Amino acid sequence: MNTKKTTIQTTHFLYKIILFVLLFSASAKAQIQKVEPPFWYAGMKNPELQIMFYGKKIAQYEASVSNNVVIKNVEKTENPNYLFVTIDTQNLKASELVFSFKTKNKVAFTQKYSLKERRANSADRKSYDSSDMIYLIMPDRFANGNPKNDSDAALTEKGNRQDPSGRHGGDIEGIIKNLDYISSLGATTIWSTPLCEDNDKQHSYHTYGQSDVYKIDPRYGTNDDYARLSAEMHKKDMKLVMDYVTNHWGITHWMMSDIPTKTWFNQFENFTQTHHRREVITDIHASKLDQEICIDGWFVPSMPDLNLKNPLVAKYLTQNAIWWIEFANLDGFRVDTYNYSDPTAMSNWAKSITNEYPNFNIVGEIWMHNQANLAYWQKDSKVGAIENYNSNLPSVMDFTLQDQIGSAFYESEATWDNGMIKFYNNFALDYLYPNPNSILVFAENHDTDRINHTYKYDFTKYKLAMTLLATVRGIPQLYYGSEIGMGGDKGKGDADIRQDFPGGWNGDKNNALTAAGRTAEQAKYFDFTSKLFNWRKSNEAVHFGKMTHYIPENNTYVYFRYTDAKTVMVVFNNNAKEQVIKTNRFKENIKNFKSGKDILTGKTFDLATEITLEPKSAVVLELE
Amino acid sequence: MNTKKTTIQTTHFLYKIILFVLLFSASAKAQIQKVEPPFWYAGMKNPELQIMFYGKKIAQYEASVSNNVVIKNVEKTENPNYLFVTIDTQNLKASELVFSFKTKNKVAFTQKYSLKERRANSADRKSYDSSDMIYLIMPDRFANGNPKNDSDAALTEKGNRQDPSGRHGGDIEGIIKNLDYISSLGATTIWSTPLCEDNDKQHSYHTYGQSDVYKIDPRYGTNDDYARLSAEMHKKDMKLVMDYVTNHWGITHWMMSDIPTKTWFNQFENFTQTHHRREVITDIHASKLDQEICIDGWFVPSMPDLNLKNPLVAKYLTQNAIWWIEFANLDGFRVDTYNYSDPTAMSNWAKSITNEYPNFNIVGEIWMHNQANLAYWQKDSKVGAIENYNSNLPSVMDFTLQDQIGSAFYESEATWDNGMIKFYNNFALDYLYPNPNSILVFAENHDTDRINHTYKYDFTKYKLAMTLLATVRGIPQLYYGSEIGMGGDKGKGDADIRQDFPGGWNGDKNNALTAAGRTAEQAKYFDFTSKLFNWRKSNEAVHFGKMTHYIPENNTYVYFRYTDAKTVMVVFNNNAKEQVIKTNRFKENIKNFKSGKDILTGKTFDLATEITLEPKSAVVLELE
Repeated sequence: MNTKKTTIQTTHFLYKIILFVLLFSASAKAQIQKVEPPFWYAGMKNPELQIMFYGKKIAQYEASVSNNVVIKNVEKTENPNYLFVTIDTQNLKASELVFSFKTKNKVAFTQKYSLKERRANSADRKSYDSSDMIYLIMPDRFANGNPKNDSDAALTEKGNRQDPSGRHGGDIEGIIKNLDYISSLGATTIWSTPLCEDNDKQHSYHTYGQSDVYKIDPRYGTNDDYARLSAEMHKKDMKLVMDYVTNHWGITHWMMSDIPTKTWFNQFENFTQTHHRREVITDIHASKLDQEICIDGWFVPSMPDLNLKNPLVAKYLTQNAIWWIEFANLDGFRVDTYNYSDPTAMSNWAKSITNEYPNFNIVGEIWMHNQANLAYWQKDSKVGAIENYNSNLPSVMDFTLQDQIGSAFYESEATWDNGMIKFYNNFALDYLYPNPNSILVFAENHDTDRINHTYKYDFTKYKLAMTLLATVRGIPQLYYGSEIGMGGDKGKGDADIRQDFPGGWNGDKNNALTAAGRTAEQAKYFDFTSKLFNWRKSNEAVHFGKMTHYIPENNTYVYFRYTDAKTVMVVFNNNAKEQVIKTNRFKENIKNFKSGKDILTGKTFDLATEITLEPKSAVVLELE
Repeated sequence: MNTKKTTIQTTHFLYKIILFVLLFSASAKAQIQKVEPPFWYAGMKNPELQIMFYGKKIAQYEASVSNNVVIKNVEKTENPNYLFVTIDTQNLKASELVFSFKTKNKVAFTQKYSLKERRANSADRKSYDSSDMIYLIMPDRFANGNPKNDSDAALTEKGNRQDPSGRHGGDIEGIIKNLDYISSLGATTIWSTPLCEDNDKQHSYHTYGQSDVYKIDPRYGTNDDYARLSAEMHKKDMKLVMDYVTNHWGITHWMMSDIPTKTWFNQFENFTQTHHRREVITDIHASKLDQEICIDGWFVPSMPDLNLKNPLVAKYLTQNAIWWIEFANLDGFRVDTYNYSDPTAMSNWAKSITNEYPNFNIVGEIWMHNQANLAYWQKDSKVGAIENYNSNLPSVMDFTLQDQIGSAFYESEATWDNGMIKFYNNFALDYLYPNPNSILVFAENHDTDRINHTYKYDFTKYKLAMTLLATVRGIPQLYYGSEIGMGGDKGKGDADIRQDFPGGWNGDKNNALTAAGRTAEQAKYFDFTSKLFNWRKSNEAVHFGKMTHYIPENNTYVYFRYTDAKTVMVVFNNNAKEQVIKTNRFKENIKNFKSGKDILTGKTFDLATEITLEPKSAVVLELE
């Protein structure tokens, strides 16, 4: 026996073991760089869960899972660094699973995976509806609750409040600290523009170019901060709406450095931007090329266009959305650029979410200027049915109403189609909508001129617009800051319409977040808005009541919102002169009521023969 | 025996007989003043015929009829001078019937009634469609073929060509004499504004206030002249479209002096005019009062509003329409103020007509400015179906396209929603129409500004508009005179847009009806129009071909009309500058075609890489 040889052999054997252990440890750490969703919930209606494992050459391994969980499908792409494993979670309780990854029948490494417990009644959660008022916040510009997170070492763009298009430091903490302010305005719901990480080197403050959709941008806070915002809001009976982006991510999204599959994003031979003409989608005469560029073209060069026709992508986005609902206990979605994506995939996306949460409201940004083209996209639309399409999207935005709000109150002299008739004609097309009371009504948002700019800071017109929004069918949405008279000119660029809310930053000289801090002008705007929407909060007639309106005469407009229990009469005088309005014409709705009390001024109007309205004014009468 | 007494008795008896005979004769003559329809046709699909007998106290008599004809119903109103007798014409051959009117079981008087033979294949008559071009004539203003009938002793308004709003003498004979002119323009169909008697004391030339709907106005000719016009047109393979008015008659209609029943016309306590806001009809929020005034209010004080909700009236108007189809061998209807009448009654009216004539085209004047509100009214509309409505109206007018034609060609610099995109967006909504190729396309009519006025007599814009009308989907309609450059400003009143066609009157210095008589300017307009629409006459690709259009770029617009056999490519350059258009984008439609020959100039365009268009120009390329 040659001991030397034996020693060498033994040494060699030990060496191999050590090497193996070292290698295994190294690979077990390095192999899996991302698992998405990072965890999941037990007891979802849809038992199928597609987990994406990302790691170097992970596709070479065979996956298995503990607890007798069944793997229904394993999908690989041409990129060996991705593995999509679909498991069946049916009947699984909250538990810790372990995925094992084998090669040559040996476990090379493992990965823990949590199935968490859902909140009680998670599936039956309520959502926002026409009883709510939505306050739209661009969080970087609202309030800086935590100045320590204005910059983040790992993220490129640093805080710089001097740059109008830079990051100003507003964050989740800023919203949490000002919930009482928002509530005092009469808002019940917050729609915040996106909060997930956006590592763009500039303009990241708008955050529509996300680089990680499972992670709140550290400059806004943490995932837990976002869940805390939701929890704090629920304590105040408020609702949180997440701004979800299905159409695109940001150019710095981590997948962009190692694309899962070439069809994950829509790509053309040369860079191709969408033409933004969404009319082609429903157009029976459209060319295939125009339709393709519409859906597959990129929104802007910095936003890679997601290909929802790829089922892996569609599933990824569906689960991501559901994950946020569960994780942050969300009350609803607003979806960006809704009809820039494959319509069938978007319909399935919305259906998957509302299958899990039957009451969950989702409003899609369908930015078009014709009522039929808007109505097409609301769930169960008979306009959509013309082309056998059902979007499954519960709500759309009343962009045609916004168009009218931008001009009608300027028109003190009515012509055939000017002045208050614009509103009448807008609502007269409500027959096209399957559910007109579920659509969003608004004067402005973060992509448009601010209404106070449009109105050249005329408080009178602002009051008319707000009165309209508070009393017509639909879900009113306000845009942060306009309630204290803020303006902004889209013509000067986005920064102008997304200025900082005064008082949101330590040291702001003007603090409009407190009554004491407001200027007289700001107080005038705030007090009116607050009075109106606080009244609205508890008025079921304007939440869910029927609406009857009368053809505008002499640029006046009268409509009623009513339930069996209550009738509200709204009267607009859009003239520069006082107007006398005879009441006889409205007897269908006035019935036996004798008088109406204006909720704004407290003044009582006798309805026997006529009422007189001041120039450019509106009254909201509770009939008695 | 007292002979004296006998003589007296005999004399008395004779006296009574004479008196009876005299009375009977008198009453037999006087009793029936009108029978409507004045005759009918055997073999109609609907065997029920409602005959209206009008005469003093005729309702006191019992009607019966010869030839074993069954009376299915006799209807009386509160006015004893009317009797509505419905007979069953099933299986009846052409024959002469005799109605007897009895009182106390004795025949008081009788009335002959003819059932005439229908033309062969009357029910299967063809109608106008998108292979046609319609020439719209206001007959008083087109040509005076018979100067002897300019005035009529029995009718109030006399001919007076000096009065812009007076009767100028144009007539049916004038149309007949100029059929070759009309045909040479490329028109295949004539829509003449109404020709039935209108005895209004002024403005009767437009003839929308008819005083007898069974009689051509003698100042236009006779009923037989109208039938002769139709016959002469058919010899030339042309089609005649009658302008039918269901909504109202004229204040001098003979029934107005003895209204059949108080519900024959819509009447209010005080005169009430329609508000013209037809949006209320489909509006789910409309007040009942607004809807009632829309439908039942009068169009103008001189036009009593017909109550089609009364079945007697509905039946009267249905039979009157069918009577004219049979009598004058008509090829189609245009219906005035279509949605000013009860929608259900109008649907039944249209259905009754198309039941008798399955191919018969009827285009309704639905003058609205939103595509959904137009599409609602086309037969089998899925927009209408939202409210469970089916108009049964085969065709509507593309008023939204007309809106765009009035402005887009002015817009040499395109913005997001200006210039050629207006046309794209109009056609992009065609999904709303059940049959977009059956709707009327036009730049103007007798109620609007003339297009040459709109264009400030810019021939370039005229050419663009005509090229569009000749090549897009739908049935093109031109308005008399514009093809020789006539203008007219609606702002100056209706007379300005309804001027006399030069050459239509003996002694006219300028005779644009002949090539020799046209000025150079007139010839320029005529030659272009004639060339374009004569080309269209035989081009199936623009009649029935599919349409594919491409999103306008740089204010250019490209679309294709094509069948398996032929492809036509239409290119517009709406810029004030020359434009180079790359062809690669259109390869879906260009396929293997190499070149296109412009039907207007004969010039051939190579399609390999790009084509160049002159400023503000269009080409219509037959691909080769």
